[in-house]
Amino acid sequence: MELESRLSADKGHILKAVLVVHNETSTGATSGIAELRRAMNRCGHPALLIVDAISSLGSMEYRHDEWEVDVTIAASQKGLMIPPGLSFNAISQKALSANKTAKMPRSYWDWQSMLKSSEMGFFPYTPATNLIYGLREALQMIREEGLENVFRRHERHARAVRAAVWEWGLEIVCTTPQEYSNTVTAVFTPGGHDADQLRATILEHFDLSLGAGLGKLAGKVFRIGHLGHFNDLMLTGTLTGIEMGMRLASVPHKEGGVMAALCRLAPTGKNLAAPS
Amino acid sequence: MELESRLSADKGHILKAVLVVHNETSTGATSGIAELRRAMNRCGHPALLIVDAISSLGSMEYRHDEWEVDVTIAASQKGLMIPPGLSFNAISQKALSANKTAKMPRSYWDWQSMLKSSEMGFFPYTPATNLIYGLREALQMIREEGLENVFRRHERHARAVRAAVWEWGLEIVCTTPQEYSNTVTAVFTPGGHDADQLRATILEHFDLSLGAGLGKLAGKVFRIGHLGHFNDLMLTGTLTGIEMGMRLASVPHKEGGVMAALCRLAPTGKNLAAPS
Amino acid sequence: MELESRLSADKGHILKAVLVVHNETSTGATSGIAELRRAMNRCGHPALLIVDAISSLGSMEYRHDEWEVDVTIAASQKGLMIPPGLSFNAISQKALSANKTAKMPRSYWDWQSMLKSSEMGFFPYTPATNLIYGLREALQMIREEGLENVFRRHERHARAVRAAVWEWGLEIVCTTPQEYSNTVTAVFTPGGHDADQLRATILEHFDLSLGAGLGKLAGKVFRIGHLGHFNDLMLTGTLTGIEMGMRLASVPHKEGGVMAALCRLAPTGKNLAAPS
Amino acid sequence: MELESRLSADKGHILKAVLVVHNETSTGATSGIAELRRAMNRCGHPALLIVDAISSLGSMEYRHDEWEVDVTIAASQKGLMIPPGLSFNAISQKALSANKTAKMPRSYWDWQSMLKSSEMGFFPYTPATNLIYGLREALQMIREEGLENVFRRHERHARAVRAAVWEWGLEIVCTTPQEYSNTVTAVFTPGGHDADQLRATILEHFDLSLGAGLGKLAGKVFRIGHLGHFNDLMLTGTLTGIEMGMRLASVPHKEGGVMAALCRLAPTGKNLAAPS
Repeated sequence: MELESRLSADKGHILKAVLVVHNETSTGATSGIAELRRAMNRCGHPALLIVDAISSLGSMEYRHDEWEVDVTIAASQKGLMIPPGLSFNAISQKALSANKTAKMPRSYWDWQSMLKSSEMGFFPYTPATNLIYGLREALQMIREEGLENVFRRHERHARAVRAAVWEWGLEIVCTTPQEYSNTVTAVFTPGGHDADQLRATILEHFDLSLGAGLGKLAGKVFRIGHLGHFNDLMLTGTLTGIEMGMRLASVPHKEGGVMAALCRLAPTGKNLAAPS
Repeated sequence: MELESRLSADKGHILKAVLVVHNETSTGATSGIAELRRAMNRCGHPALLIVDAISSLGSMEYRHDEWEVDVTIAASQKGLMIPPGLSFNAISQKALSANKTAKMPRSYWDWQSMLKSSEMGFFPYTPATNLIYGLREALQMIREEGLENVFRRHERHARAVRAAVWEWGLEIVCTTPQEYSNTVTAVFTPGGHDADQLRATILEHFDLSLGAGLGKLAGKVFRIGHLGHFNDLMLTGTLTGIEMGMRLASVPHKEGGVMAALCRLAPTGKNLAAPS
Repeated sequence: MELESRLSADKGHILKAVLVVHNETSTGATSGIAELRRAMNRCGHPALLIVDAISSLGSMEYRHDEWEVDVTIAASQKGLMIPPGLSFNAISQKALSANKTAKMPRSYWDWQSMLKSSEMGFFPYTPATNLIYGLREALQMIREEGLENVFRRHERHARAVRAAVWEWGLEIVCTTPQEYSNTVTAVFTPGGHDADQLRATILEHFDLSLGAGLGKLAGKVFRIGHLGHFNDLMLTGTLTGIEMGMRLASVPHKEGGVMAALCRLAPTGKNLAAPS
Repeated sequence: MELESRLSADKGHILKAVLVVHNETSTGATSGIAELRRAMNRCGHPALLIVDAISSLGSMEYRHDEWEVDVTIAASQKGLMIPPGLSFNAISQKALSANKTAKMPRSYWDWQSMLKSSEMGFFPYTPATNLIYGLREALQMIREEGLENVFRRHERHARAVRAAVWEWGLEIVCTTPQEYSNTVTAVFTPGGHDADQLRATILEHFDLSLGAGLGKLAGKVFRIGHLGHFNDLMLTGTLTGIEMGMRLASVPHKEGGVMAALCRLAPTGKNLAAPS
């Protein structure tokens, strides 16, 4: 594993932290955080493990303590189902100690003033109060459904989306099955067809907004979000918009993706509640 | 036509009014109001024509003046897209005259006090003010889309729903094609299968609430509403819920209804905007 | 009492019902329902007692059973604090029996179909569902404050309003102290001054809408509503708008009404919670 | 002026910026930014002028360009009337140049990436979208009232608040009249009386939340906010809550503060619209 060789080579411990995105929204790929941690532990390297869990928290299994993550960065606008504007950090004891001796100037982002205020239930600066009320409700919704059920729902939906994509004969950006994301699927349009034009057609005709390809994937990829407050019918509505949009935009594809998803979601003779 | 013979037989003009439901929500059947009017005119019978347009107004073509309707009764909660609580009457000159000489006791429903107050923009009794604000917004939405486009959208959706039902091999309650409703489709479950149990399964698994069979259709029929603020993806989401629900509830059907609807909505090589 | 003599004179029991408004919003006067009932009982007259409690229910003591009222008519938009659009009836056994033998034609208002449906938690016609959700929340708010406390609050506010009016040197429409309303106070503008012009000035300058005089009081009276979701500061804000408005509109008055209300609400050396 | 002597003494230009709070919310004092700028200009010192206009923008006159401010920092939750969660910078050409050569590490707060994205109407990171919609509406409200009128309204209210405080015989924290804030007034409770206990009494009895004294003013001061979507009646409601609260909490004061404010707001024989 490249991480392991890089860390082993860093005899002087110049590297201070390993930063990983748990769920990469631009490609729809998930990283194995536990495995990365084990690799770091094998090297005995003291770098901190910092994880961006923004688009996975509340949608996929994530274990800050068990996986020995030092800093987890999360936010309100994905699996937590509220508008953007809040961000959270979970911090290990090791990261807190590093913070106390670090020399980099900092002010608003300083954990110490945040921790000190929050002990009494306050914030050092004016917080986005409305979102905090929203968060309380969102957490209540997650509790009512059951966190494990929320995870299973996201997994079922992701499998159904991939079944549709494959039935259409399209290619998924993420090529490693164990890294398929449960919250977003990035899909290549067939050679030469402009993904942004397809997205525009779908938005205009079906009031459905798909994610754009980012960076070097721009124009070549569209992204399907399937996370948060989302159910089977929203999912098939979404896939229908894509299938009808490809037809309208004359993007070559095999019909039947929606049907394939539907079979995945409610297989004949099997109970819905069972993991598919 | 039965109406014609009944009216012709009423030499003494004992019948004071003909009451018709424009769009029958319990069966999903539409009446030809213009044709009924012509039949009444042929008889030269003076009865008033009173039409319940509650579930058609704003969703299907309706012409109070041109069809010489005397009283149209409409409401807020269907094609006008706002919560229940408001009702409206459109009244012909003939109905107004009849009202002035009628002897039936009336109070709250009396047109005269309503008309008098509304001349100055008031109401004789406390109106449901919030719904009036909502109505203003709803009418603005209809104007933005264009009333003709709203009608066409409902017609497209109704055709797609029927395509799905037929593909499933199920039977539509309304048996006369020119009377198919553009806003609601009532469907028989296959012999012996409890429609209410199917509805319960669909509600539980997909958070989708279908209409129940009413009166003698209770337990034998489920009803699909496709009106108001509704688009292609909501429609296919709805049909998907039914198709998956039938599978889960082991209601015999042929698969492919959703697919058939999808083909209806976006036929290959044809522009969406064209009436299908 | 006039009622008593009228009923006694009606030997043939031609009068079928006595209709009383519990709280008259146009004049700000409350009727003693219990006393009227006793008078009816003394005569031994079988007329039904029908009470309009629209602007008192939930704001003042009202006892349908104890006062032997036969029909109570209430609504959503006053003390129940939700938008207009719902109305309720409480019905005695005697009224129900009368209903069964009555011959007057009725349809929508018929209690029988309503009672039959409501046994199973349904409505015979489409109800104003949104308001029913609102009502549930409103009742919860009333329960949290305690119905007795809600009544006391309205009484305190009404006393404070009258203290202000008297300090201004203005006259209250209701002249019988035991009939003063706890939810609305109607006030005469001093001779010759147009009440509607004063109301317009107050609305324009302070965004405060006062009730107009109705019928023969039009132009001579303004009405102060003090009911529902209302607290001490909203009350003094309201009175301030009136006092400043009279100054701006050059309506003659003695200053100090707001101050007098304030003294009523928080008398020196007395606890707020004690009835003033 | 102290600033002038400090800057003149800094021959080596070690000081890089002068940071000023335009409106100090903890004390209710406003700084004369234009005057400070003139002092800086007289010294010919190259330091940047950075101003925190969070609690003044949209409520008091503020002129970024004319006063030659280099960086203005503002936020959504005060005069702009929307929930907390958005912050804005206005940046002079000089500040932009300094930014390009500065060596301090920065990331999220970096103007360059923000400026680059915003050229095309985008943001480099997920923005608080809901607040941006709110801001659009807030700016529309300010435009409808007229910015000059908004400023005048805040000035009128601040004068009325001070009239009340003086009538009560209490002391305002800010002792320099030309520095009185138009958006917040901090007031000392009379010697020995706990300001936080008074605030608690007022919150409990009147549902009115006053600001606490901060830092060395804790427990000695309460703060009255009078900014944003606020009108004469809200203001007198607020002052009433304080006057009644002092009575209930036995905080010594002279009665009549509300009355004094009321006289300030609507002086006899003068038009409301004229600046008082």
